[in-house]
Amino acid sequence: MTRKHTTRLLNELRQLMKNTQYVSQPLHAYIIPSGDAHQSEYIAACDQRRAFISGFTGSAGTAVVTEKEAALWTDGRYFLQASEEMDENWTLMKQGLPETPSEGKWLNKTLEEGSVVGVDPHLLEGETWRDLARELQGEGHSLVPVTKNLLDALWSDRPPRPANPVVPLQIQYTGMSLNDKLAQLRQSLQEENAVMIILTALDEIAYLYNLRGSDIEYNPVFFSYAAVTENEAYLFINESQLTAGARESLQAGENNVIVKPYDDLEKFISEQLDMVRGKVWVSNHASYAVTQMVPKERRVCKVSPVAVMKAIKNPVEIKGMEACHVRDAAALCRYFAWLEKEAARGSQTEISGADQLQKFREELDDFVGLSFCTISSVGPNAAVIHYKPSPATDRRITTEDIYLCDSGAQYKDGTTDVTRTLHFGTPSKFEQECFTRVLKGVIKVATCIFPTKIKGNCLDTLARICLWDVGLDYGHGTGHGIGMYLNVHEGPMGVSWRPLPDDPGLQEGMFLSDEPGYYEDGKFGIRIENIVRIVKAETTHNFRDRGFLTFKTVTLVPIQTKLIDPSLLNEKEINWLNSYHAECREKVGELLLTQGHKNAYDWLVRETEPIG
Amino acid sequence: MTRKHTTRLLNELRQLMKNTQYVSQPLHAYIIPSGDAHQSEYIAACDQRRAFISGFTGSAGTAVVTEKEAALWTDGRYFLQASEEMDENWTLMKQGLPETPSEGKWLNKTLEEGSVVGVDPHLLEGETWRDLARELQGEGHSLVPVTKNLLDALWSDRPPRPANPVVPLQIQYTGMSLNDKLAQLRQSLQEENAVMIILTALDEIAYLYNLRGSDIEYNPVFFSYAAVTENEAYLFINESQLTAGARESLQAGENNVIVKPYDDLEKFISEQLDMVRGKVWVSNHASYAVTQMVPKERRVCKVSPVAVMKAIKNPVEIKGMEACHVRDAAALCRYFAWLEKEAARGSQTEISGADQLQKFREELDDFVGLSFCTISSVGPNAAVIHYKPSPATDRRITTEDIYLCDSGAQYKDGTTDVTRTLHFGTPSKFEQECFTRVLKGVIKVATCIFPTKIKGNCLDTLARICLWDVGLDYGHGTGHGIGMYLNVHEGPMGVSWRPLPDDPGLQEGMFLSDEPGYYEDGKFGIRIENIVRIVKAETTHNFRDRGFLTFKTVTLVPIQTKLIDPSLLNEKEINWLNSYHAECREKVGELLLTQGHKNAYDWLVRETEPIG
Repeated sequence: MTRKHTTRLLNELRQLMKNTQYVSQPLHAYIIPSGDAHQSEYIAACDQRRAFISGFTGSAGTAVVTEKEAALWTDGRYFLQASEEMDENWTLMKQGLPETPSEGKWLNKTLEEGSVVGVDPHLLEGETWRDLARELQGEGHSLVPVTKNLLDALWSDRPPRPANPVVPLQIQYTGMSLNDKLAQLRQSLQEENAVMIILTALDEIAYLYNLRGSDIEYNPVFFSYAAVTENEAYLFINESQLTAGARESLQAGENNVIVKPYDDLEKFISEQLDMVRGKVWVSNHASYAVTQMVPKERRVCKVSPVAVMKAIKNPVEIKGMEACHVRDAAALCRYFAWLEKEAARGSQTEISGADQLQKFREELDDFVGLSFCTISSVGPNAAVIHYKPSPATDRRITTEDIYLCDSGAQYKDGTTDVTRTLHFGTPSKFEQECFTRVLKGVIKVATCIFPTKIKGNCLDTLARICLWDVGLDYGHGTGHGIGMYLNVHEGPMGVSWRPLPDDPGLQEGMFLSDEPGYYEDGKFGIRIENIVRIVKAETTHNFRDRGFLTFKTVTLVPIQTKLIDPSLLNEKEINWLNSYHAECREKVGELLLTQGHKNAYDWLVRETEPIG
Repeated sequence: MTRKHTTRLLNELRQLMKNTQYVSQPLHAYIIPSGDAHQSEYIAACDQRRAFISGFTGSAGTAVVTEKEAALWTDGRYFLQASEEMDENWTLMKQGLPETPSEGKWLNKTLEEGSVVGVDPHLLEGETWRDLARELQGEGHSLVPVTKNLLDALWSDRPPRPANPVVPLQIQYTGMSLNDKLAQLRQSLQEENAVMIILTALDEIAYLYNLRGSDIEYNPVFFSYAAVTENEAYLFINESQLTAGARESLQAGENNVIVKPYDDLEKFISEQLDMVRGKVWVSNHASYAVTQMVPKERRVCKVSPVAVMKAIKNPVEIKGMEACHVRDAAALCRYFAWLEKEAARGSQTEISGADQLQKFREELDDFVGLSFCTISSVGPNAAVIHYKPSPATDRRITTEDIYLCDSGAQYKDGTTDVTRTLHFGTPSKFEQECFTRVLKGVIKVATCIFPTKIKGNCLDTLARICLWDVGLDYGHGTGHGIGMYLNVHEGPMGVSWRPLPDDPGLQEGMFLSDEPGYYEDGKFGIRIENIVRIVKAETTHNFRDRGFLTFKTVTLVPIQTKLIDPSLLNEKEINWLNSYHAECREKVGELLLTQGHKNAYDWLVRETEPIG
């Protein structure tokens, strides 16, 4: 890793902070968040402003520059990396340690009374802005929007905003026409007495308009905004990105989407506010810039109804998700069968292994790309929850250490995300105990029956209770939503000990991950991750007609029985595992044979032998 | 039930709403909440203003009177009762039905633009006030404080505020001196940079000053406020209530509590705000009247640290709680042994049974009174979760129906709350299945191991999952905190599917109820309720040094094995039940023999025979 020299850059930034061509009043502090104007989880190179100014390239972090100081907040995953990437101008603020103040607290302590703090209002969510503004006001400071981004002004070799082709996704994949989606969306607007909604989340726009792009790595989305009124639908986009097919689909049948330039959103909103009466829905995750354009008394600020529509998959999407998981499983079986032999020879590393897995996936029908950077991790690296192999950390895959592989892909009919943990030699008793308790958590979630619309956090403890029994736990959530050929992480529901404020309650047709784990720092990491689909449960009774639900496991990759201590499983759990493995063998085995992958098929048969 | 005639009263109230001797500006609506100025769950007769104006005497409800209308909101428990108690002037607003608007929404719909809504600011929590004020402002109305309560002005025969003697509770019961409690409280103030705290919750004041009273039925508290600064402690009380012993205890040793009149709180706060610099802590549950006295920038508005101190019982309190639960169990064993014989003859009813149970309790050492009105309920009445037997609903206890008894008492060394469900004849298969699944929930909670400081809501699903398995559930929370010779319901933690915002995380020394149930409307109700104490768990590992906890069941009353279907219990559950019953037999049996209650002892021995 090379340390970035930032002295000159910081000087230039501090000059801009006083330059009234850029700021309406001189700033005493300037905040550089990680995000983009769409509050995306993954961001394009042109939006990596915080990395540009600080040198720290991790995925999460906030930089704050005052007249004399420069500080960067990041969490425990990145303490080492940040300290290696940043020069002496920067102070590392270790989030999560009790002595580390928040950005607001630190600013309140550092700044002289009555200071002015600036930030690009496109890069903070409305609620985050409001909370920070209140905190700063409490000590007499003010938070002001700086609409010209100061980093963009001094970043001379800033990469251009991606403008990759945008293509239509056919109804055979989406299962629902744009017209039907608009009708359902307008129904939600009516229920809230809103006459318009503004969409800023890239995956919501791709979903609604049945379009896909590739502006952000791993995410089949494109830079855009959207607005839907009672009679019109608007798409704000760099028009040159629209392929002929995309243009056509926006005009097909009853569709009549009005395409406007990407940068015209704010002008459009102010025009509409003058033209129409009634309330305007802005997602509670929209930027402050967009949120504050709509006067508070005319604003509906809730989770976007498109986020909820998108989370509940329709029958065609369900079929696609299940089909792509079978294909994806075939690639993983080929990989693990191959890797088992390679591991005995010590011929592969985390990186070369991940590359090979990608090659196997690329051969599959409807493959588009990976859904995130493969976590291919050996021994102590597997204990790093968000590990990403790099040449500096790359370890050899052997028969000595546990191997954890968390990977997924984008297919035109769905998105996958699967983690398997394997030992190619002889696991220790403790590794077996941990693996088995993690598996018990997977099964407890997968088989539970629960009333319709309970919130996902109610299920989190089921995944942990068998680890808690012996004093173990894991430091991440249990499940996230997943897109249909969209982002690998999507809301608004999820399974975590933390209640998710936007969770609309668990409903039939939602897909979630089920992924407990256990991590022994410096030694090994275990995670088992399946995608599960919410289905109706058959129950003898039906309390207050609520309807009961359960899960169907969609991921079909064998769970290594070598790592299981069967004495820790009860009969129900053994039956679940055996029947799961029978399904893997049947569905994936058939495909492997069709594909002519006899070695992988033999591996699958061996790995799916019943136990107990 | 008699219907109250309210025409004259409402006319008088509407005149007062325009009378500038009472209001600073004419009111278009006046809200009459249920609560008192201390946000007590149980209230004294003089505070039952909503019952006085509307005729509706249930425990929960809000009345709103406009120039032309009068509406009362209450929940499903009370729809029938409210409709029978109120006359034609009143519209019943059925809370929980989708078509029923909230008070705010209804006011916004009913009032002409720019209307003025008044309410006594002592009777609404600060946060409730803020939310309602915002909602009304959104439609151009204003919410104004009416400090002279209009109901008090027209309620000619309003009972006087109780002023019963207040007595000290000795250190052998409290386990912690006033001085030590003040030191611990001041530590919390320092951590929040606060120089003063104002206490308004009656149980917090009783706890802090080691005093007890009897101003509110079932709750050993007294009307008062308190304030603690860095050097002083104040008690605002009708001084005549303080017995010589109480006075002495407030002055004993280093104690030097300054006693001021109950009504002087607000004057005191405004004086202090002028005299001292620094922040003032006001509980987030204090009334708007008290909250708004402290300017926002000087206010710490969080859960009271006394609520958290009170929830974590000290070793003396733990010993007392456990001891009184053994005595209390002896009374219940006597009752059930007696009732079993009476039921065969059909000689007792819900009310006469509850009276007999009270007599048995009254014989016990350190008995003070009941901790709530006994829920003694037969058959369909047992399906009414908050049932209170009355002459009109009183049913005979027989061998035909399930009998549910939820009762508790106040002792000088602790508070009890226990529910047992029994069948004195032959239960149906379905009743057995429901009972057994409820019991499985009790055991799952009682035996679970969990990391220190997780929130109580994380455990709720454990109590329900075996009911969910067959499509059953129950419509109430799973556990509440309980006082030590204080209120039977106390916070700030609890176990429910709803996260409790004030939950400080589960900690050693807390006491909770563990009370799943199942209710078959119109037929029967089942609940099993034990009090459990949080204790350290012995685990092989200790993830991130968090420390693991579990529960010890404190309630020691047999669980009727006749109602159990043993085929639904696993080995671990059978072992738990048998060892629980062995403990009941040992501890309660010994006491029954000492007391000379041979019949009850024989019943206990029979009811605690091991199963399986």
